[in-house]
Amino acid sequence: MKRYEQFAEEIAALIRQGVLAAGERIPSVRQACRHYGISQSTVFQAYYLLENRGLIKARARSGYFVLEHAQCSLKEPDTDPLPGDAVATEVAVSELVFSVLESLQDTSTVPFGSAFPSAELFPLSRLATSMTRALREMTPESVGADMTSGHPDLRRQIALRYRLGGMQLATEELVITNGAMEALSLALQCVTDPGDLVAIEAPTFYASLQLLERLKLRAVEIPQHPSGGIDLDVFEERLASLPIKACWLMSHLQNPLGVSLSDVRKQRLYNLLKRHQVPLLEDDVYAELYFGSVPPRPVKAFDDDGLVMHCSSFSKCLAPGYRVGWVSGGRFAPTIERLKLMTSISPSLPGQAAIADYLQHGGFDRHLRKLRQQLERQQARMLTAAERYFPVETRVKRPDGGYFLWFEFPPQVDSLRLFQQALETGVSLAPGPIFSASGDFRHCARLNYGHLWNARSEEAMKTLGVLLTELMSANRAEARG
Amino acid sequence: MKRYEQFAEEIAALIRQGVLAAGERIPSVRQACRHYGISQSTVFQAYYLLENRGLIKARARSGYFVLEHAQCSLKEPDTDPLPGDAVATEVAVSELVFSVLESLQDTSTVPFGSAFPSAELFPLSRLATSMTRALREMTPESVGADMTSGHPDLRRQIALRYRLGGMQLATEELVITNGAMEALSLALQCVTDPGDLVAIEAPTFYASLQLLERLKLRAVEIPQHPSGGIDLDVFEERLASLPIKACWLMSHLQNPLGVSLSDVRKQRLYNLLKRHQVPLLEDDVYAELYFGSVPPRPVKAFDDDGLVMHCSSFSKCLAPGYRVGWVSGGRFAPTIERLKLMTSISPSLPGQAAIADYLQHGGFDRHLRKLRQQLERQQARMLTAAERYFPVETRVKRPDGGYFLWFEFPPQVDSLRLFQQALETGVSLAPGPIFSASGDFRHCARLNYGHLWNARSEEAMKTLGVLLTELMSANRAEARG
Repeated sequence: MKRYEQFAEEIAALIRQGVLAAGERIPSVRQACRHYGISQSTVFQAYYLLENRGLIKARARSGYFVLEHAQCSLKEPDTDPLPGDAVATEVAVSELVFSVLESLQDTSTVPFGSAFPSAELFPLSRLATSMTRALREMTPESVGADMTSGHPDLRRQIALRYRLGGMQLATEELVITNGAMEALSLALQCVTDPGDLVAIEAPTFYASLQLLERLKLRAVEIPQHPSGGIDLDVFEERLASLPIKACWLMSHLQNPLGVSLSDVRKQRLYNLLKRHQVPLLEDDVYAELYFGSVPPRPVKAFDDDGLVMHCSSFSKCLAPGYRVGWVSGGRFAPTIERLKLMTSISPSLPGQAAIADYLQHGGFDRHLRKLRQQLERQQARMLTAAERYFPVETRVKRPDGGYFLWFEFPPQVDSLRLFQQALETGVSLAPGPIFSASGDFRHCARLNYGHLWNARSEEAMKTLGVLLTELMSANRAEARG
Repeated sequence: MKRYEQFAEEIAALIRQGVLAAGERIPSVRQACRHYGISQSTVFQAYYLLENRGLIKARARSGYFVLEHAQCSLKEPDTDPLPGDAVATEVAVSELVFSVLESLQDTSTVPFGSAFPSAELFPLSRLATSMTRALREMTPESVGADMTSGHPDLRRQIALRYRLGGMQLATEELVITNGAMEALSLALQCVTDPGDLVAIEAPTFYASLQLLERLKLRAVEIPQHPSGGIDLDVFEERLASLPIKACWLMSHLQNPLGVSLSDVRKQRLYNLLKRHQVPLLEDDVYAELYFGSVPPRPVKAFDDDGLVMHCSSFSKCLAPGYRVGWVSGGRFAPTIERLKLMTSISPSLPGQAAIADYLQHGGFDRHLRKLRQQLERQQARMLTAAERYFPVETRVKRPDGGYFLWFEFPPQVDSLRLFQQALETGVSLAPGPIFSASGDFRHCARLNYGHLWNARSEEAMKTLGVLLTELMSANRAEARG
């Protein structure tokens, strides 16, 4: 981390914590130089970064001020742990999930329920240039070999990014897949049989619930808290008492909650897994979407025993629709590779080749910096709107990245009803129960801010606010009646 | 079928049956006009076609002669039906198959064992042009929708090709997949549970055996004969006596045997399936690789009850490595669509878009005509070499398309030993036992002629001939000793 990034982080933290209030003037360049013992140019660079991240704004001849958007008075959620008796749950959420997904087909809907960020945020035309070049270099001889083991340049580029993040990785450990979803699906099949128990977070990404359901696996839901993530005490107890065959989680920007594990907790988690020799599927598709200056380390970075299958993709940070993902499979890599050959043989080669060329020549890091700042600004817009329109009792987790906000509404709110009513007004959302095998989180919802913020988004938040208030008073009336 | 194509077929049949012998002169243009009552230009066009297919050759001022390559004196195979007691077999061939597949990794090997034709046969650079144009037209808005249901132009183009083949098909029935392999994998999972019985052909494509093994399904092997295909009497008996949940077969250019079902037999097969309400996975990846003038109809064409899941792809006729396939799923299409969303979400969009553009503008039919003629010529070269170098007792099925020959060697030949020894001399092949759940076909092998024929190919056939003779005399010596 450069000095200016470090200084920017310090100011950002003061803003987040409310030490510097909305509208308040932040230290002038001269004050900051003196107080922190840094150069003018460092301060300027830091403030420029904070402006881009949507936290401060310069006013002519008056200095820099904290933007109203930068703060949110809504409290963090206080999700209850799950009841302790439901230790292993048959999964049957697919019907509900599909009805939610189908609602997203209508492109006229405000896509707060979507799982993807807007494709407008991605350098599609620059990627097309890379594609043209890559196809010119694709030889007939290479097709067969690349189908078996993945595009060699792409594998090298991915291994290189791990290395930039401080992780040495054998290229042989990498299996290129048709998006992260195929990586996760193969990894799970590689370490489980029907009927087995798999530890997952609650709430968790509905696609993992669907996959468990399809493979006839049973879920052991481990509660997680909005502040620190998965409850490691509960997890330790479950590992000791149940024959858990695999653990599937997101250590960073967990979907839907947005929480990230600290390094200390990642180490403890890994130690538990290693002691019980339980393989980990680490779903890390938001790896590149952090708002701070330092890339977080995955649990994979702590793995000295080949137990972690680290799955990610370019779908959410670069190339939606290209369906290029991978798993760094540890000791399971050869088995995953074979499963892949038996299931789909190979992901599409042109997409792999285009991304390999882009990673080498396209300016990936520059694109990512822009993308992160854009998402951070959009997060602020949604938070401000929530503060303005939603009931004051609403709680919200403010994640350090990604494009989801997890809302916890007052307990009277039934998010499935909210979902239905919102849809009738042309607004989608992802209701809480689709994120749990036990149907919990009925008063919660996940909202996507990964689409360009505009008057319609603002209007949609207002509509949701009205519906929320109505649902609350209707329920109060029902309770009284 | 045009008149000249029909006439060409008649002459081709006479050549195949040996009525017109190698080196013999075929009817002159004038004779043909008189005898068949057709115009000179029709005869010329037919002879031009037969020249391109490698069956005849013009000699200046002497007329047209049957090429030596066009005929083969080796007999058709006479594969024994399987023993009647093994009605349901646990499948465990993967290890053997993988060891064969690994042998193909070495690109210095003569790839007779390969499952793919050479990528040199395909219009890769014309496809790249289509890709460039398609990506220019790809909008961010389309990405999400196209991921769910597949590229709309591609779906239309595929539906159109079915229509050209005389089949009306609702576009909704089409699920675009990551190659035919994913289509087959999803289709199979959609109609079976672990432990179920699945009827397959013997011999069959090893990938279907691997998939059965992975999904813990049991195989009911139905013998097939090189002349007519699957034994429908046995199949009828098995359907009546066993709780068969699905049938997986290739009605056209079956891999590895190369046999195609007649329309009469297709109808009878379909009637049996319909009576027992057993869904059919029809693997039709060689649909476009017929040598004659009329595209064969799949069993799907006889389906009036939505029972047939017709799977195909562009991997073997246009775009290797693009991994674009589909299933026309009949009544199972919605379930397959959902399974796809849960497994890999979507195949890569750029590849889909490029192929859609190519189908519209690239000259697919022209390419296919050239490809078919090329493959037919290469088949003749391999047959001629087999006749020259292999033991006279060798039998071979001469298929009407595709790029495989199925050889039946004298019973003393162990094709696994042949495989090992050939590999040491730099020649690969696909030994018989990988095509059977019961480990049958030990004296058989599949050879790929889908690579440009050259001096190395000729030399490789010679080497195989020497090894075959050695194996035969070694075994005779062992038997005597």
